[in-house]
Order: sequence, then structure tokens, then C-alpha cells
Amino acid sequence: MNALSQRFVLTLACANGPGIVAAVAGHLSEAGFNILDAQQYDDTETDRFFMRVVFDPVSGLGNIEGMRAGFAPLAARFGMTWALREPNARRRVLLMVSKFDHCLADLLYRWRIDELLFEPVGVIANHPMETYSHVDLRGIPFHHLPVTRNTKLEQETKVWEIIRESKADLVVLARYMQVLSDGLAAKLAGRCINIHHSFLPSFKGAKPYHQAHTRGVKLIGATAHYVTSDLDEGPIIAQDVEPITHRDTPDDLVRKGRDIERRVLARAVRHHLEDRILLNGRKTVVFAD
Amino acid sequence: MNALSQRFVLTLACANGPGIVAAVAGHLSEAGFNILDAQQYDDTETDRFFMRVVFDPVSGLGNIEGMRAGFAPLAARFGMTWALREPNARRRVLLMVSKFDHCLADLLYRWRIDELLFEPVGVIANHPMETYSHVDLRGIPFHHLPVTRNTKLEQETKVWEIIRESKADLVVLARYMQVLSDGLAAKLAGRCINIHHSFLPSFKGAKPYHQAHTRGVKLIGATAHYVTSDLDEGPIIAQDVEPITHRDTPDDLVRKGRDIERRVLARAVRHHLEDRILLNGRKTVVFAD
Amino acid sequence: MNALSQRFVLTLACANGPGIVAAVAGHLSEAGFNILDAQQYDDTETDRFFMRVVFDPVSGLGNIEGMRAGFAPLAARFGMTWALREPNARRRVLLMVSKFDHCLADLLYRWRIDELLFEPVGVIANHPMETYSHVDLRGIPFHHLPVTRNTKLEQETKVWEIIRESKADLVVLARYMQVLSDGLAAKLAGRCINIHHSFLPSFKGAKPYHQAHTRGVKLIGATAHYVTSDLDEGPIIAQDVEPITHRDTPDDLVRKGRDIERRVLARAVRHHLEDRILLNGRKTVVFAD
Amino acid sequence: MNALSQRFVLTLACANGPGIVAAVAGHLSEAGFNILDAQQYDDTETDRFFMRVVFDPVSGLGNIEGMRAGFAPLAARFGMTWALREPNARRRVLLMVSKFDHCLADLLYRWRIDELLFEPVGVIANHPMETYSHVDLRGIPFHHLPVTRNTKLEQETKVWEIIRESKADLVVLARYMQVLSDGLAAKLAGRCINIHHSFLPSFKGAKPYHQAHTRGVKLIGATAHYVTSDLDEGPIIAQDVEPITHRDTPDDLVRKGRDIERRVLARAVRHHLEDRILLNGRKTVVFAD
Repeated sequence: MNALSQRFVLTLACANGPGIVAAVAGHLSEAGFNILDAQQYDDTETDRFFMRVVFDPVSGLGNIEGMRAGFAPLAARFGMTWALREPNARRRVLLMVSKFDHCLADLLYRWRIDELLFEPVGVIANHPMETYSHVDLRGIPFHHLPVTRNTKLEQETKVWEIIRESKADLVVLARYMQVLSDGLAAKLAGRCINIHHSFLPSFKGAKPYHQAHTRGVKLIGATAHYVTSDLDEGPIIAQDVEPITHRDTPDDLVRKGRDIERRVLARAVRHHLEDRILLNGRKTVVFAD
Repeated sequence: MNALSQRFVLTLACANGPGIVAAVAGHLSEAGFNILDAQQYDDTETDRFFMRVVFDPVSGLGNIEGMRAGFAPLAARFGMTWALREPNARRRVLLMVSKFDHCLADLLYRWRIDELLFEPVGVIANHPMETYSHVDLRGIPFHHLPVTRNTKLEQETKVWEIIRESKADLVVLARYMQVLSDGLAAKLAGRCINIHHSFLPSFKGAKPYHQAHTRGVKLIGATAHYVTSDLDEGPIIAQDVEPITHRDTPDDLVRKGRDIERRVLARAVRHHLEDRILLNGRKTVVFAD
Repeated sequence: MNALSQRFVLTLACANGPGIVAAVAGHLSEAGFNILDAQQYDDTETDRFFMRVVFDPVSGLGNIEGMRAGFAPLAARFGMTWALREPNARRRVLLMVSKFDHCLADLLYRWRIDELLFEPVGVIANHPMETYSHVDLRGIPFHHLPVTRNTKLEQETKVWEIIRESKADLVVLARYMQVLSDGLAAKLAGRCINIHHSFLPSFKGAKPYHQAHTRGVKLIGATAHYVTSDLDEGPIIAQDVEPITHRDTPDDLVRKGRDIERRVLARAVRHHLEDRILLNGRKTVVFAD
Repeated sequence: MNALSQRFVLTLACANGPGIVAAVAGHLSEAGFNILDAQQYDDTETDRFFMRVVFDPVSGLGNIEGMRAGFAPLAARFGMTWALREPNARRRVLLMVSKFDHCLADLLYRWRIDELLFEPVGVIANHPMETYSHVDLRGIPFHHLPVTRNTKLEQETKVWEIIRESKADLVVLARYMQVLSDGLAAKLAGRCINIHHSFLPSFKGAKPYHQAHTRGVKLIGATAHYVTSDLDEGPIIAQDVEPITHRDTPDDLVRKGRDIERRVLARAVRHHLEDRILLNGRKTVVFAD
């Protein structure tokens, strides 16, 4: 579904209980809105309830401020965590990259053709700009922050400054090969997506394609997840794999992996931008389209 | 999700308009029921609205007769076509088969281990029972109805009699290689599922694997669809494919195809049994799990 | 390709070096045989060479004893490990199973319709025969060997006796949930295939579907591998996965997993029976069709 | 496998018969070359034999001119059509594109990072250069050849001139939406690859995603094939699909399709560049890696 001019997205989570759907649907209807799509999920293990509702105003009706004002007490009654996305509000996205730029190039391509609707507010790289000479970076602030053992801490301080100054809503580690500190990871909880080049939890850590080659697996994969202080353990958003054979060298795995990585990361970013992902402890609820 | 003892499933379709979700959710809530899962779909081309709601009684509340009585006027107001499935109501399924029994064996295996919850009310075959000697048919009425050019019509009359007498809710053509007449297809509209061994609309008609081999495609597939009088043109429920290579002979395609056929047919039957499929003209809405 | 009456299969492995293909092809040609298919693989890391050749006699020529006698010195010259499979020689297969019989039922079905060409020489189960009442076991010796902590060792002795007495070439652990001892694993090196219900190396050990659910992965899988004394670390033969969502309970994963397990195990067994697998250290070379 | 400095690739096709593999392998061995990889295929329907051999010189030996001279009479004896590719010889590729540039951008990206080894000798577009402003076309001759009903013929003449003058070995229709004339298709037989946005033979002709949406299929796909005068009927090289649901609008299909198209086309181009494809009537033999 395309984002159309008048579509709002409401996401919410709360303890499960009777009457939630009726209360939400009833409130939207009374406020003059029409539900276009609604998805929900009861986690029977934790007894948490999750919901995503897309709605637009019934022609001539539908005052969003009224809806919002009335929704607050309803949300309080059910103990909801909730968010309301305005139509056409584009998230501000900061992209971080190391030497390999296939994910960066892919995300920017999808952005330029309006497949991914976001606002790129900067690219942070630990390699100089000429590394990315065939990626069209025109109009996007570029920050070269080389990282050495000695400068790691102060560079991270700069990263955080750039995030704040650019008012980034989402940070995407598009094959950024530096591990974020626990502190920064904590600050970015739920709004920093990483692509790891293995089907986690297999092959955590460094050189996963070499690990996969050594183990002799018959599938390789990639995993997009939210970054947490626990390396490669954050909530998984999307995964995919492709078959390989004994003939594939580590270089072949790197080549095949590029395709998996870029499509898995693009899917995760799209689902985040469309408010389809809700955190559920160390897991995700993904209301896919 | 497993079917649990108190789960009802409501499915409905009507012209789209504001307030439908609120009305349905409100009615269920007032009648003492809790919505466990709800999925909906607006077809913006035809302006039709489709919904599937799973609900169970709030402990101590929830009178289904009251809910049903109150729902009828609501449904009338919105012009809904609707159905309400009782908990644990098993559909009565008649299976039809020709020489190749891999789909029959697979469906019956899934039934015996309680993966597919139905009541097998009979098997109709145009080959004698010994053809299926390694399939466990114990306890299921078996009807041998050989078909020749001259007997086709009277055999179909018998098929219809068996359907009526066995009170079959669903007929599954599990590689039944006889074409049903227009009349019988019409009588079974929306409750007869066929598995066709190609990724329709490619390779309609006879010997699709040979057609695929001749054309040199690199994927073969299977399609489960509702039977209509228009051969191989009925609403598609499920499809899947597998890669093939130039090395594959037609016999290899038949072998690889068996696996695709049985999993596609099983998926379609499961979705039908769980009331996940709504007809939308010559297409289907499938509220997948 | 179907196994036809006169097809021989030669498999070999040796240190790489020039002239191997020419020597093998030349010998077969001179001995009156025609190469129908040949696949080879150079492992440039270990400098090992692997080959599989399918050949049949040129009409009126082709004496296999002469070919064999002449091949021995050639093999000695290159230091080859080699094997020659006669046409229509069916491997003797012993199947082992615990409570869940979907893999057993599937393998036996494929055997009965001549998709898998082997000779079933027995079924060993740690549950009584009535557990498998809907699987057609007629004509196959059934051994009930219940396992408790105290009887584990002596039962394994019986397993080994049955393997020897039945002259089993291949043992298939078709969801047999007892861990083989190191000693038995060693005796069965390269001829015992297990199906593990995860995409190894993720989720080794017990209850992999529950582990997968807890971790929140978006794909589940299954792995067929040769059994070694290192639990779940043996050479991988085949793997496959399917997408799952947050909605899937552990029970759903078990259900979806059954389909993956049976097709992955059947593929591995077929490749073994067709001499398509060569061991390469702790990895496999699989000359797929 | 990476293309390394001394690797030659020999491809050949001839009537099947005994001794071909032995003759080829023997000749290479005598000429001082080592076979690194060999794949073959007997088409038992047409009795044609196909082979692809990768070889490099044994250190200190291996004169390619000698090998070539000696191979000619051998090839003549077996009636072979054959080709020998020198190491590092890059094919000259002309890319043609219409409005949608995702395949163009993807192929050029893969070229720049040395994933696809070719020499881009030009881009022909029926839209002006600014249409592709975010694709890095620096250093590649760009030809704007707008097509109207009246100019179609003369524009094709110009296309042919550009092909000849640029000495293009391969023409890639990277979502070029103009149908080539029979004459031009014939001239480019076996060296012009098109990407069609459906899983052919379904949905030939215009607007395949709209056709797919109308029919209600549950998978969409893309097909790379050699262009022939028979529209959308040329030999298929590669195909892939992705699942869709009833929710997907034609616009969603276009979006999902872009990913399939670019990976299918890239795979086909790579296989062509690596001499992995042999024509077999209206089908292809693809010796995949």
C-alpha cells in the first residue's frame, strides 16, 4: 500500500484484556475516522497485546487533535504505550558505513526512487569520501570519522553529536563494522538497525562468511536486528538465506551475501519506517504487509 | 495457533464503509467475548471489505446465541455475507484421487497426527482400492468409480450422490485427473479445491510437467485453487515453486513436483479448514497465519 | 535421472594433480564405456580432488571386471580412495525412530513408489510398534528397543548387532531422539545420517524449536548431517528453512518444521543412495543433480 | 570461483558418442594443461552433448596456441561447435534501458565493484540522460534514441550501428521496453539478454504485473531470456519468484518485482559472461556454479 496523503498510523502495546479492540475502533469511529487496516497480536506467554491501526478521516469529518485528546485517557485506562504517526511524516535517517557500500548504495537508490520514504540526514563513514565515489551522495552531509583504537571513544562522542544535531530518528548501520559502545547502544535502543552477515544466532562476531565456509553449511544468510549492548543479540527484524554449495569459496559467499544483506536490510528499514515493528522484550512483532 | 476449545471464528464480507470494525468489535465486547485475532482487507478496486475475527468468551460471560442474535441485524445493516464457526466443529471432507496417491497419503497423514482437523467422510477413486494398498484407508468409506468416456456422466451423478449422502462440506481433488462437468463445478462453488501441477496460469491443461520441460523453464510449481467451470481458471489459493535445471527430465519434474503439490495442497486445505479464505470474485483473500 | 539398468557410478578422491580427468576418462573409454555424467571438485584449500563419474557400456563392449582390474593400478598411482557402484545395487537401509514418525512415514512412502531406491532391512524404535500404527511397516523387521538410563548401553549393543546382522549399509536416524555413543558413532562414520530440527550450527542440542522461539528468529530450518561423536557437529549434507513470524508458537514451529525435516532428510538420503556425497574432512562435497 | 589470470574456458557442443570426454581431457593433458572444472550434459532427447571445461597451464608447460591447433582436428572429428575464452578477456556489453533504471543501476554497481567482469561500451536509452541522473554513467558513452511510431525503424538502424561500432559482444535489455524487430533479434541471436517481469510463459506481453494482479496469483516472478524474433519466447536463462498476497496492489507488485528483476538479470548476465550458457534449440544449458 502506498502512503497516501491522509493516512495515520497508530501503534500500541499494553497488557492484554477484553475490550481493547472495541475501545480503539469505537474511539476512531466516533472521532470521524475510518479504519483502513488493523493488525493485532496477543503474546499468550507474556500476556501482552500489540496493535497497529491505519486510518484516515471520513470525508468532512475526522479531527486528529480531537482524536488524540480523547485517546490519551483511553490509553491511560489500558496502560498503553502508544504512538501516532502523522501522514507524510518522514523519519530522519542517519546512515553509517564502512568500506563495503552495497547496502548504502541500495538504500539510497530505494530512497531516490521513492520506494523508501525517509529523509537522509547524513552519512557517517570510517573511510574517506572517495571510497564511495560511485555512490550518489549529493545533498547528504558526509562525515568522515576514522576509528583507531585510541580515537574510538571520542569518535563515538562525535557520532552521538551528529545524531543529536541532525535530529536523526533512526540510525542504520549499513555494514558499519565498528561495534557501538554499550552506552551508545543504550541511547539508540529501538532506533538503530544493524545488518549482520549471517543467519543469527549462527556465526556471531567477526568474519561470519569464513565461519560458514569452515563449518560447511549449505545455506548462508543475513539478519537485520535492533542494536543492543549485547553484540549480535538484539531483537531480530528480518532474515533471509540462499543456498550455497561446496564449490563456493569465502569470496563467493561474500558475493552471494551482498544480495541477501541489501534486501534484508531494506526490508527491515521499510518495516521500521512504516511503523510495522513493535518491540516485545528481546523479540519483535512485525506486522508485515 | 492451535484450535482451542472455546474459539469461534467469524468471517464476513460487505461493501466498505466507515464504522464496520468498531461495530463488530463493539458487538463482540458487549456480548462478553474477547477478540483474539482480527484481520481485515479493503479491496480498493471493488470497494469490498473482508474480515476474519477469532474470539472466545470472557470468563463467565459470552453467550454465543445472544451474540448471534444480536449480530444478525448488524450484519443486515452493513449488507454483510457472514459465517460463524463453532469451536471444534470439524468440516466433513471428501477426497477424490486418481492413480497418484502422494497428495491423498499426505493429507491423511496430516489428519491422523491432528495437524489437519477435519472429518474424512470418504475417498472416491477412479482406480480400484488395491492401487492405494500402502495408504492407510481404514475406517474411511472407499468408492471405486471408474470413468470411461461412456460412463462419465453417470459416474458424476454418483459422485454428487456421495457428496450429498456423506454431507461433505469440502471436496478435495487430490490429483483427481478427471475434469468435473460445469454442472458439478457450479454446485461445489467455493468448496472444492483442486491441485494443479503447474504454476498457473502457465501450462494449463494436460501434462504440465512435459509442457514445462519443452519450454525450458527454470522453475516448476503447483497451484491449489477452487474449482470452477472454467478449467484451471478458478480462484487461486496457494502456489509454490522449486528451481529445476536443464538436467531434469520430465520424470525428474514429476518427482520434484510431488513435493510441491502435496505441500501446496495441504496449505490450501488447512487455510480452508481454518476459515482463512474468502472469495473475492475470481480471486481469493487469504488471511494467512 | 533414473537409475537405468546398465549405469555404473565411480566416485574417487585423491590429492590434486594434472592428468587425473584424462586418466580416468581415457581408461573408461578404452575399457569400452561411455561417460554419461561427470562432476569434479578441486578443494584449493586442502588440494584434494573429488570426482563422480556415471558411465555405461558402449553397446557390445564394456567389460566391468576388466575395467575394475585396470583401474586399480591407476588408482594406486594417484593415491585414490575410490568406490564403484554396480547398476541396480540397492543399499540396505536401517531406519531408527522415536515418537514422531513423519520422517519414517515419508521415507517409506518414497521407497514404496520407487522414488528412493533402497532395501529397508529394519526399523529400530524406542517406542512400541503400535505408536506407528498408521505407517505401513508390513514386511520390514521391527525392533522395539526401549531406552532408559540404565539400559542405554546394552540397547546400543543390540542396535549394533541388528546393524551387523541386517548387513545395513546405511543407518538413518529419522527423528531418533537418543544420542548415539561415541563408539557407535565412530563405527558408523560416513554411513549414518541424522536429521536435526534446526539450521545448524544454530540451536544445537535439545528442543531447538523452543530455542528458536525464545530467540525470536524469523526463519526455522532443518539440517541433515552425518553422525559423528561430536554431537550436532557432523558433516552437513543438506539444509533448508522456512519463514516464520512472531505469531508462531512453539507448536506452530513443530508443525512447520515437520515439512522441512522430511524434505531435507529425504534429499540427503537420496544423495547418499545415489553416491553423490563425498566426505571432505568435516564437510561434504555434494554432487547434486 | 574467481577468474584468475591463467584460466581458459572451453565450451563445446556436438552429437553425443563415446570417447568425447576422454578425447578432450587427453588433449588438454598432453598439451600441458590441468582441468580445474568440467561440466557436461547429454540431452538424451536430441542426443546432443554439451561441455564446459575450465583449465590452466601446468606450471612451465601449457602452450595455448599448440592446444588450439591440436584441438581443431579433434573438434572436426566429433563435429563440435566450440569456443575458447582467453583468461581475462572481458566481454564488451551494451546496455539498453527505458524509464526504469533499477536493472541498469544494479548492473553498473556490480560492474564497478568487480562482481561482474565486463567492459561497458555504451548505454542506449529512449529517455534523455537526465532521467538517469542518480546513476553513475561517467565514462560510458550515452546514446539517447527516443522512439516514436514513425522513428522506430531508423532508431533501430542506429542501434545496430552503435552495436557494430562499439564492437559489443553482448546486448542487455535492462528493462528496455521497446520490442526489437525480427531482423535485429535475428542478428543478435544468442547475444542479447532481456529481462521480462513475469515468470514466463505466464503473462507474456505488456503490463505483466497488472495481469498477475488481475489473475490473483500468489507468486510473482521475473525471467531472463535470450531475445528471439518470437516475443517473450526466447530461451530462458534464469527465473525467480517471490510470494505475494491479496493485499498487494499493482504498485506493490512493481516494487517487489524490481528486486526479483535485478537479481535474475544479474545472474543471467554473470552466467553469460562466464560462458556458462549453451544454447540447446529453444532451451538453454546452464552450467551453474
